[in-house]
Amino acid sequence: MMGGTLMDRTMTGAYLPGNSTVELREAPVPEPGHGEVLLRMKASTICGSDIRCIYHEHLGKGPEGYQGVIAGHEPCGQIVKAGPGCRRFGVGDRVIVYHISGCGVCNDCRRGYMISCTSERYRRAYGWQRDGGMADFLLAEEKDLIHLPDELSYSDGAQVACGFGTVYEGLRKVGISGDDDVLITGLGPVGLAAGALCRKLGARRIIGIDVVEERMQLALRLGLCDEVLRSGQDNVAEVRGLTGGRGVERAIDCSANDVARATAIRATRKWGRIVFLGEGGRVEFNPSPDIIHDQKTIFGSWVTSTWLMEELVERLVRWNLHPADLVTHRFALEQVADAYTLMASGKCGKVAVCFDEELQS
Amino acid sequence: MMGGTLMDRTMTGAYLPGNSTVELREAPVPEPGHGEVLLRMKASTICGSDIRCIYHEHLGKGPEGYQGVIAGHEPCGQIVKAGPGCRRFGVGDRVIVYHISGCGVCNDCRRGYMISCTSERYRRAYGWQRDGGMADFLLAEEKDLIHLPDELSYSDGAQVACGFGTVYEGLRKVGISGDDDVLITGLGPVGLAAGALCRKLGARRIIGIDVVEERMQLALRLGLCDEVLRSGQDNVAEVRGLTGGRGVERAIDCSANDVARATAIRATRKWGRIVFLGEGGRVEFNPSPDIIHDQKTIFGSWVTSTWLMEELVERLVRWNLHPADLVTHRFALEQVADAYTLMASGKCGKVAVCFDEELQS
Amino acid sequence: MMGGTLMDRTMTGAYLPGNSTVELREAPVPEPGHGEVLLRMKASTICGSDIRCIYHEHLGKGPEGYQGVIAGHEPCGQIVKAGPGCRRFGVGDRVIVYHISGCGVCNDCRRGYMISCTSERYRRAYGWQRDGGMADFLLAEEKDLIHLPDELSYSDGAQVACGFGTVYEGLRKVGISGDDDVLITGLGPVGLAAGALCRKLGARRIIGIDVVEERMQLALRLGLCDEVLRSGQDNVAEVRGLTGGRGVERAIDCSANDVARATAIRATRKWGRIVFLGEGGRVEFNPSPDIIHDQKTIFGSWVTSTWLMEELVERLVRWNLHPADLVTHRFALEQVADAYTLMASGKCGKVAVCFDEELQS
Amino acid sequence: MMGGTLMDRTMTGAYLPGNSTVELREAPVPEPGHGEVLLRMKASTICGSDIRCIYHEHLGKGPEGYQGVIAGHEPCGQIVKAGPGCRRFGVGDRVIVYHISGCGVCNDCRRGYMISCTSERYRRAYGWQRDGGMADFLLAEEKDLIHLPDELSYSDGAQVACGFGTVYEGLRKVGISGDDDVLITGLGPVGLAAGALCRKLGARRIIGIDVVEERMQLALRLGLCDEVLRSGQDNVAEVRGLTGGRGVERAIDCSANDVARATAIRATRKWGRIVFLGEGGRVEFNPSPDIIHDQKTIFGSWVTSTWLMEELVERLVRWNLHPADLVTHRFALEQVADAYTLMASGKCGKVAVCFDEELQS
Repeated sequence: MMGGTLMDRTMTGAYLPGNSTVELREAPVPEPGHGEVLLRMKASTICGSDIRCIYHEHLGKGPEGYQGVIAGHEPCGQIVKAGPGCRRFGVGDRVIVYHISGCGVCNDCRRGYMISCTSERYRRAYGWQRDGGMADFLLAEEKDLIHLPDELSYSDGAQVACGFGTVYEGLRKVGISGDDDVLITGLGPVGLAAGALCRKLGARRIIGIDVVEERMQLALRLGLCDEVLRSGQDNVAEVRGLTGGRGVERAIDCSANDVARATAIRATRKWGRIVFLGEGGRVEFNPSPDIIHDQKTIFGSWVTSTWLMEELVERLVRWNLHPADLVTHRFALEQVADAYTLMASGKCGKVAVCFDEELQS
Repeated sequence: MMGGTLMDRTMTGAYLPGNSTVELREAPVPEPGHGEVLLRMKASTICGSDIRCIYHEHLGKGPEGYQGVIAGHEPCGQIVKAGPGCRRFGVGDRVIVYHISGCGVCNDCRRGYMISCTSERYRRAYGWQRDGGMADFLLAEEKDLIHLPDELSYSDGAQVACGFGTVYEGLRKVGISGDDDVLITGLGPVGLAAGALCRKLGARRIIGIDVVEERMQLALRLGLCDEVLRSGQDNVAEVRGLTGGRGVERAIDCSANDVARATAIRATRKWGRIVFLGEGGRVEFNPSPDIIHDQKTIFGSWVTSTWLMEELVERLVRWNLHPADLVTHRFALEQVADAYTLMASGKCGKVAVCFDEELQS
Repeated sequence: MMGGTLMDRTMTGAYLPGNSTVELREAPVPEPGHGEVLLRMKASTICGSDIRCIYHEHLGKGPEGYQGVIAGHEPCGQIVKAGPGCRRFGVGDRVIVYHISGCGVCNDCRRGYMISCTSERYRRAYGWQRDGGMADFLLAEEKDLIHLPDELSYSDGAQVACGFGTVYEGLRKVGISGDDDVLITGLGPVGLAAGALCRKLGARRIIGIDVVEERMQLALRLGLCDEVLRSGQDNVAEVRGLTGGRGVERAIDCSANDVARATAIRATRKWGRIVFLGEGGRVEFNPSPDIIHDQKTIFGSWVTSTWLMEELVERLVRWNLHPADLVTHRFALEQVADAYTLMASGKCGKVAVCFDEELQS
Repeated sequence: MMGGTLMDRTMTGAYLPGNSTVELREAPVPEPGHGEVLLRMKASTICGSDIRCIYHEHLGKGPEGYQGVIAGHEPCGQIVKAGPGCRRFGVGDRVIVYHISGCGVCNDCRRGYMISCTSERYRRAYGWQRDGGMADFLLAEEKDLIHLPDELSYSDGAQVACGFGTVYEGLRKVGISGDDDVLITGLGPVGLAAGALCRKLGARRIIGIDVVEERMQLALRLGLCDEVLRSGQDNVAEVRGLTGGRGVERAIDCSANDVARATAIRATRKWGRIVFLGEGGRVEFNPSPDIIHDQKTIFGSWVTSTWLMEELVERLVRWNLHPADLVTHRFALEQVADAYTLMASGKCGKVAVCFDEELQS
């Protein structure tokens, strides 16, 4: 199946017309050019943004616009063909794909933050402006690849590409250790990833807030939170009650909800730090009591760099932490429509489309 | 005039009944107890908060409540008598008074941040809950004193106590150097102090925003800003236009105005830092475009510590920077009512009540 | 026994004449003056510096000179009498004594680092220049006290005063979390404290190096290290071998040995941080390969501040970490000579002189 | 002269046989491949390392070995031909070449630090393992290019590539602003660059130490130092004498001399920071008095990243700072032997080989 014969073949890919359906179409298997590789897809998970901005309706514009490509921006697979000019990766390598392919040579790309690539011409997100992981094969640039060690499965890797990487960046910005009690507002996939990573970084007491009972129970059951609070107007007092009246040292907003964001700020202790990861919406607060008098700092954090993603992968192995533990449902590519339907329902954890051996695991 | 005979005498002090008037009354000259000193007042400046929260009406409660004491929380003078137990300062020493006398032994006081003292019993602001600097003499605790070098005048020192110290703390938090273009929103005394300190820290291009023409001109005339913009809805675009499209590396809000705060955030460059110094009001913004996608950080900063105030004094000498250059009007204690009337009118820079040689200078 | 009648009584105190003996003498029970308290001693541990610089011979000069006072600079006890002017602590309070009493008003004291007090007149270390904890009672200044929560024993507290506080400061400087593999060179009491605190901060793999078999086994048995290496010329290669070839992210020198210090530097990973805590001796290395090419940073760290010591105590409770677990031998005051003899032999962990209920535990 | 006809031509290049001579040879003008460009050289400066490790004798091994290529690792020129796959730069662009071409896809390259590229196969320094700038034309990879704005000359740019970039990285690590008095040990080209950049970052008092009278005078004449000391055993006391007894806040070693490095450490103030930039040699000091008791930090710093080099270029324009002001002698390519002879004599500032319009300026 590998190698030269791929060119003669076609593959199946999933497209999102924007009316809450999925279309499967045949497309030619691409041929890797200079600095490019062809991946046999192994796992491709669905992100909340896929549902919000593409599946139901094509909402985004410009760098957030869906351009009718094969969907899936959390791809993980194995290299089956490498074009000329590849310097690090080759056939047989297991790899994660950083979900934005930048130009590689602007200042932001040079920092490793291809998410912020300033090239209108070359910045293209997998699954949004260039073909993504919901297909048998994926064409990727070598510079977008992150090595996936044998200790991690492809489904582990698929979640590094977007969710875990984004969380890790934010946690590095504020610093998390055993010194810290942590509040996580919003217990969707990003919030759960935050719980898992804070735990490994040493946090002892992790408090979660959400509105959905299932998520709250999942966070407790997986041991990702020590305490879970239902979202409500007493949250600040409740968090202070759980922390000896002090508040938490660190708060991580994964909700994008304005009330939850204000809660994250207000439930944080004097000299504490808050990071906003959840996308969209607004926030409103009163600087004097909320951040000035208590000398607090609020960080914005977006995705991560390729090099920090590599550090994260190294740490996942060291910690024996498997992001795939958050995957509750796996589907074959032929059932991809069911995968999106389930994800859109919200009655699930993380949802993955898997291939080959990864489908059985 | 010094020493033992002080006890037999009375002094004049200024009180603020809260109806936009000032009362001068006689009071006994206090006697310093253990760890206390008696200062001959030399300069006592008026802060915007004195007008806002006391002079017109007694608005504050608790730690911000005015308790009918002698006014003035920016005092600077010379020690004329030292009680037992003083270890560092003695008669003849020129000193600034940190404007909050804390308990000295809670965790916040131990960090040097007496402003945040958690002792309900012992935390008392000069001029608000214990007698302040608008009198012939002031009783202070030795632990609240900052040495005033000969190179600085008492009027220089009076402004260190509150305004310049507060600004320096905020600038230390975000870091200011020749690397940075800086935006200052609000050009009142705090904003002007920010301009003066940013300049000495190395900032090359300082952009100010205000609504009052006189302030804007003053900032330019004193060389504290390179460009001054009138507050308006195009400010973000204007700041970007002045900075090659990038925005400023650092923004300092001294306005407490919600629109200006949002401008400070939005006119800041990718990876930049914003600090909020202005007190009161609210802020509202959209985290994704405003801080998340550009990896920005917002700092709250309140007053400063005694030890950093000492560092600031050392730097003022090194820089030959004289905060008193911002004083536009000086009054004798007998004319203190005129001083408050002028300050309340806003048609002035910093207003000082001065004594002895400081009145002439 | 408490209160006014104490003045009429004498107490027993231990003095170190400098010839490897201890003298017990009677002394009047002191009376607390302004801002002072009298402690009933409960636990007083022996520091390596007591043996090195006083017990065998009086080596130190100036701030490190022993002035014939009652020994013991790691005191912990209960307040039985409070002088006038105390603002936070009172009779019955359980307290740790910060081991240096500074003037309280110089710049270093104001930062909380009384260890660095610049007042020649007022800076006095307990047990070195003013009476220490090896007596029935101790006179201390309120500003030197750290609250001891009920969850911690007096023997826990005695070790906070010097060893654990010193370590915590160094760890805060370099930052320790689950992200870090840590190397500790030197497994004496300070090195063991480093192991205990790194563990609670989240470090997963802690590697220790020492020359004494007993210490190496103790570190393993208490779970404070995961791997222990005997000091030798292959240490750098061994540490790299244990860390996938990378080296550790953080190294903590607690040995003061020049070879071990160079090992700490060289076994640290690219971009890593090293902190020197062990006192005395020298270090030599080759900057280009050792720190320049790998962008490493070396921190010097000395003791800690009063306010960070308070944070440490709060964390010890949160972590359920008991420094007294490192105490291997307890003696009554009458047997204090045996305590010093044992400590000087090195065949022990931490050695404590205890009183009352603390002696039984 | 441009374009397709280049292939037909040969060019002149300078080679260093290692016996303190230079050979000029003809070589074919290279043809840019995928992601490569051909530069018309405009300025190529000589670095001290070229003299030390290549010109006199070929000392280096491995990544520091000279492989008989065209010399010159500080090249700056204009693109005359661009291979396929270039995304940002094109014909006519003025560019600086980052002096190490890394693989581009290892973790270090992804951070932008190609100097630390871990690929044995692909890491090649211009002028050491691949043809450098001492020729009419240079073949470079697009990913190694830094845009040179019109406000800077090619000779300015040549010095960014190695010296100024290296210094800027170190200054960013320790932080330099108007808050800082700075000591620079070693006033060769790197030390002079440090003086120039510290000045622009806001440093007010810059103290230099060197042994060569000419360098000392040059530093003063260019205004890069305020005070210059002759290297000697009283340097620490002299620096303290110039800084009110405190020492400097920051020290930058550009000497690689062990005595000077120890001076840099010892002349630094409590809580201060030292950075080592000078390459080679050793250092020895006494940690307790030298860094532990004064809570100092020593940073190793190596070269810089591509993205920080871009920031530096942006700042040079903003500051109107021209590195070429340190160039004292310019030579045409035909006189390149004289250029190396002069540089080896040490009787000069920076020496440049220039082409076309850059030779006249």
